Amino acid sequence: MTYCVAIHVDAGLVFCSDSRTNAGVDQVSTYSKMYRFCLGDDRHIVINAAGNLATTQAVMARLQRDLQEHTTVNLSTVTSVHDACDYVGELSVIAQQKHRDKLNDTTFESSFLLGGKLRGEAPLICLIYPQGNHITSSPQTPYLQIGESKYGKPILDRILRPDSTLSTAALCALLSMDSTMRSNLSVGPPVELVTFAKGSQVLTHQHFDANSDYFRSLHKTWEKQITHAFSQLEPPSGL
Amino acid sequence: MTYCVAIHVDAGLVFCSDSRTNAGVDQVSTYSKMYRFCLGDDRHIVINAAGNLATTQAVMARLQRDLQEHTTVNLSTVTSVHDACDYVGELSVIAQQKHRDKLNDTTFESSFLLGGKLRGEAPLICLIYPQGNHITSSPQTPYLQIGESKYGKPILDRILRPDSTLSTAALCALLSMDSTMRSNLSVGPPVELVTFAKGSQVLTHQHFDANSDYFRSLHKTWEKQITHAFSQLEPPSGL
Repeated sequence: MTYCVAIHVDAGLVFCSDSRTNAGVDQVSTYSKMYRFCLGDDRHIVINAAGNLATTQAVMARLQRDLQEHTTVNLSTVTSVHDACDYVGELSVIAQQKHRDKLNDTTFESSFLLGGKLRGEAPLICLIYPQGNHITSSPQTPYLQIGESKYGKPILDRILRPDSTLSTAALCALLSMDSTMRSNLSVGPPVELVTFAKGSQVLTHQHFDANSDYFRSLHKTWEKQITHAFSQLEPPSGL
Repeated sequence: MTYCVAIHVDAGLVFCSDSRTNAGVDQVSTYSKMYRFCLGDDRHIVINAAGNLATTQAVMARLQRDLQEHTTVNLSTVTSVHDACDYVGELSVIAQQKHRDKLNDTTFESSFLLGGKLRGEAPLICLIYPQGNHITSSPQTPYLQIGESKYGKPILDRILRPDSTLSTAALCALLSMDSTMRSNLSVGPPVELVTFAKGSQVLTHQHFDANSDYFRSLHKTWEKQITHAFSQLEPPSGL
């Protein structure tokens, strides 16, 4: 499985992904699910992927090939994040159909988070469903998730606001990832974090492997803080 | 949907359940999923149910009828918690098969948490799968969950230890429920809490509706504590 989260706050965008893929517990591998396309100062696109690895890789290979072959529609010609989502959604459906036709009932679904900033557009994040359609976030729900999304949802719901700083959003994404890895073996390090400040022309990419001092210390401190917070609460009466 | 959690610590047992059932968003109702059978000083059984409401009600009605009709096997004759689970598991499979046979592909699965103390036995909790088989908890994982279990799992993983007090276990169950209700509309109040101290002959039952002062204050304080804990953390560098 996989867990990826994208956050859209006033201050910019945050993307966070794990790197574990598995086909059964005896076939566990490490693959990055964070794809960055920096196609000039005014064209930054980040894609996270979850689901069938063959579908994901087929889509990513096709995106690269289209860029190299200068096809009419590619990530350097689409004029909005929505158009980029339609394009990636179509490639995903094509990749799935190619193999579903042969094997009937078996599906090879993938979901994607796609976000970034194109030309004069405001930054945007979207979730592309396996069916190829997509949704964006809202001020009330300033994040989107794919993969094992439930474990790490409560902390996002509790902390994120549209006016959260980029640093708060990044920290919240990492804690959401930490809770998920703590409770689900199919999600694991390295953790990748990409941030894109509003008005900036540069993506910041960080990579935390299992031995990262920062991530280990974050994990430990959060565990301690949660335990302390818990100790401040009043248990139900009569116990 | 539903969320129920049962906890087994050295100090005793805790059960916690929500009360929302839904068949689509326009058919939401309130049903208790906490069933208590106190059949004498030495026979206390608690059952939580999740899944298809018709199956659950069929099983519960049959349990009551068997008790009234003094059938050979019923909750007052089974000699262990494991036997009680086998019995409930069989009734559940029968209820599911009765309707599956008629409607083919549609299934009416239910899962149950069953725990308690019979005669000289040590207290025990079990999870009964829709297939009728069951598992118990372990010192490493001193809890079992049914229904919408993922949102509320991280807090259980972080806090619970076999030597946690009953009051800690009860508080942890309520916070696990609070996180789930915060992030999933299909889980809702009233929340019911049953505790059973080791060596005691009495179940303690508490009921928190949407206006419960204690539960509202717990929700608010926990939100505040989490926000404070979050503010103590160091964000990743460079942001």
